[in-house]
Amino acid sequence: MMTANRRTIMAGAGAGLAVAYGLGSGARANAAQPQRKLGYAIVGLGYYATQQIMPQFRDCEFARLTALVSGTPEKLERYGEEYGIPVTHRYSYADYDSIRDNPDIDIVYVVLPNAMHAEYSIRAAQAGKHVMCEKPMAVSAAECEAMIAACRKAGTKLMIGYRSQFEPHNLHAMALAQSGDLGPTQIITSEHGFYAQPNQWRLERPMSGGGSLMDIGIYSLQAARYLAGEEPVEVTAMESTDRSDPRFASVEDRIDFVLRFPSGIMASCVSSYSSNHNNFRLHGTEGWLRAEPATAYTGHRLWVERDGQTQEINLPPPDKNQFAAQLDHLPQAIMAGTQPRASGEEGWRDLSIIEAIYRSAREGRAIRLPETLATGPAGA
Amino acid sequence: MMTANRRTIMAGAGAGLAVAYGLGSGARANAAQPQRKLGYAIVGLGYYATQQIMPQFRDCEFARLTALVSGTPEKLERYGEEYGIPVTHRYSYADYDSIRDNPDIDIVYVVLPNAMHAEYSIRAAQAGKHVMCEKPMAVSAAECEAMIAACRKAGTKLMIGYRSQFEPHNLHAMALAQSGDLGPTQIITSEHGFYAQPNQWRLERPMSGGGSLMDIGIYSLQAARYLAGEEPVEVTAMESTDRSDPRFASVEDRIDFVLRFPSGIMASCVSSYSSNHNNFRLHGTEGWLRAEPATAYTGHRLWVERDGQTQEINLPPPDKNQFAAQLDHLPQAIMAGTQPRASGEEGWRDLSIIEAIYRSAREGRAIRLPETLATGPAGA
Repeated sequence: MMTANRRTIMAGAGAGLAVAYGLGSGARANAAQPQRKLGYAIVGLGYYATQQIMPQFRDCEFARLTALVSGTPEKLERYGEEYGIPVTHRYSYADYDSIRDNPDIDIVYVVLPNAMHAEYSIRAAQAGKHVMCEKPMAVSAAECEAMIAACRKAGTKLMIGYRSQFEPHNLHAMALAQSGDLGPTQIITSEHGFYAQPNQWRLERPMSGGGSLMDIGIYSLQAARYLAGEEPVEVTAMESTDRSDPRFASVEDRIDFVLRFPSGIMASCVSSYSSNHNNFRLHGTEGWLRAEPATAYTGHRLWVERDGQTQEINLPPPDKNQFAAQLDHLPQAIMAGTQPRASGEEGWRDLSIIEAIYRSAREGRAIRLPETLATGPAGA
Repeated sequence: MMTANRRTIMAGAGAGLAVAYGLGSGARANAAQPQRKLGYAIVGLGYYATQQIMPQFRDCEFARLTALVSGTPEKLERYGEEYGIPVTHRYSYADYDSIRDNPDIDIVYVVLPNAMHAEYSIRAAQAGKHVMCEKPMAVSAAECEAMIAACRKAGTKLMIGYRSQFEPHNLHAMALAQSGDLGPTQIITSEHGFYAQPNQWRLERPMSGGGSLMDIGIYSLQAARYLAGEEPVEVTAMESTDRSDPRFASVEDRIDFVLRFPSGIMASCVSSYSSNHNNFRLHGTEGWLRAEPATAYTGHRLWVERDGQTQEINLPPPDKNQFAAQLDHLPQAIMAGTQPRASGEEGWRDLSIIEAIYRSAREGRAIRLPETLATGPAGA
């Protein structure tokens, strides 16, 4: 059966793994002491903000919801009431910049359509606020660079909402990949997709910056990168879009891509707006792991194969779910003076690769990725 | 829950599906009448021939083992004794062409290293024998064309050993894909690989014609094609091979590729000589199926997802396993005067696409596939 070492790794993402990833445990140990909770302003009160993010503050140790920004007065009133946000802390886009004068706002969380991420993040930094920005970070690598520069200039921190980097099954998969227990990683596959309903901003290129890849395929890319533990050097991609489908007048439907990493790992990734996918696999010389659903809101499952035996990994329930852990992480980084795990550079890397994926599909050729990918934007 | 129609499709590959694929049922109905069993000569007595194929004749209705061809006298004696093959029906390669004079040989099954497939198939046809040839059919599309031409000239049938086309779970997956129950197919993924041990003919390009793609990745390609039910129009590929590994002095290790089909289906495929993989998935707009192991010798499993529910499909044990069904299929086609399911054209298509995959990886660009792929070789 399994060796003691293997048993440890396969048994669960306990304190050891959390420490290895610099998450939670240390801060949790300090939680007995009173901590100031940093205040978040949520910008953009759509489904994801109101139904997924805002309910999570109740489980946060270091974060609280202190302000709302929306162009819809009814939403400000409804959610302001629901979350006890005083009228003085409810902002329209017209008076957004006056958040500067509100000391209860430490962090601005930008949950707007993709094309507005850069502007509202930069204005938050200029108002002296730290920034959490939803993925994709922006609609181009150049915008990401401007966001990084603005936060650097303002002396504020910048983090991207890569919640899967705070989810136990994903963390366990990363740890397993790095442990060597499956042998050196050879192949990663990652598939993400859903059937996009018509008449949404995500299908309008001026708002979204692109189709399935910007929205859901970015999870395939993220998983490939955090499972590989290195930055890709080359990509080839192919797109399939039925332009007679009104959903796809301006954005792509399906786009598949293959990444090659310096160690030789290859990652085959799927992105789709016409079919449901949520899984990844990692194959080493000695075994493999499979996660499905891999990056969902809830219900994650993970299996590991070694010596011809497939075994499900049952992880203990985490102290905090991925949403609360993500919300707490930026305040922790701010208070500790450290770089957040899912930094602006991380978002910039994804956008740089996404641009190369689109170019590869468009030009029908493999694209070399810039060597600066592993370090950061040229201007940084 | 499921509709009656869905229940029928999901419940199992019963007589209906077998009929839909033109397999078995009709012949089975005639089995009560005495049938002549056609005689096979096995050429090449390696592991696959002796351990996987030859034991299957005991379960065949229309096939029997009547002759052996090998360059190793000890093997001829050992397996000749074991299977009751008289000395007169045991051939060396030097007297291979004299199979022409043996009326007990109807079919020659070529189970030699890939580079010898074309020559021994063509000589079998020239000796007036029908040909079953292991996959890959040959080491180039041009060789496949020569094999097809030789069999046509001799008036003999030609079939390729694509056993998965006779395996119930694979047949069920094909039927599900075509049934529309999962919605129109959008994405296929297929992964095949194993860790290749050193010092085998499969790692010597002059014998194998290529690396993992010729050997195991061809299963990914086959599955993509028979699940899509159409021929691809374009391919992009990327290779990753550590040339410092002595196993890969002359052949590739990993090669991943993406195929696009006329209907817009995309297939992302993995081929590896450094990691174990044996699965495929097919995603439609309404649901998906997953097979794992998908194309193994035994132990196949299949799951279907509809309406957010994943369900394993438990198929009744088949009358004949995939090996026996394949061995019986060519005699049935010969006696019925029909084209066998896994024809020479089928093998030629795979080699044509394999050549394009290698070219795409080598040249770093997408390759358009010839329009003749759907019809057949130009000379045909």
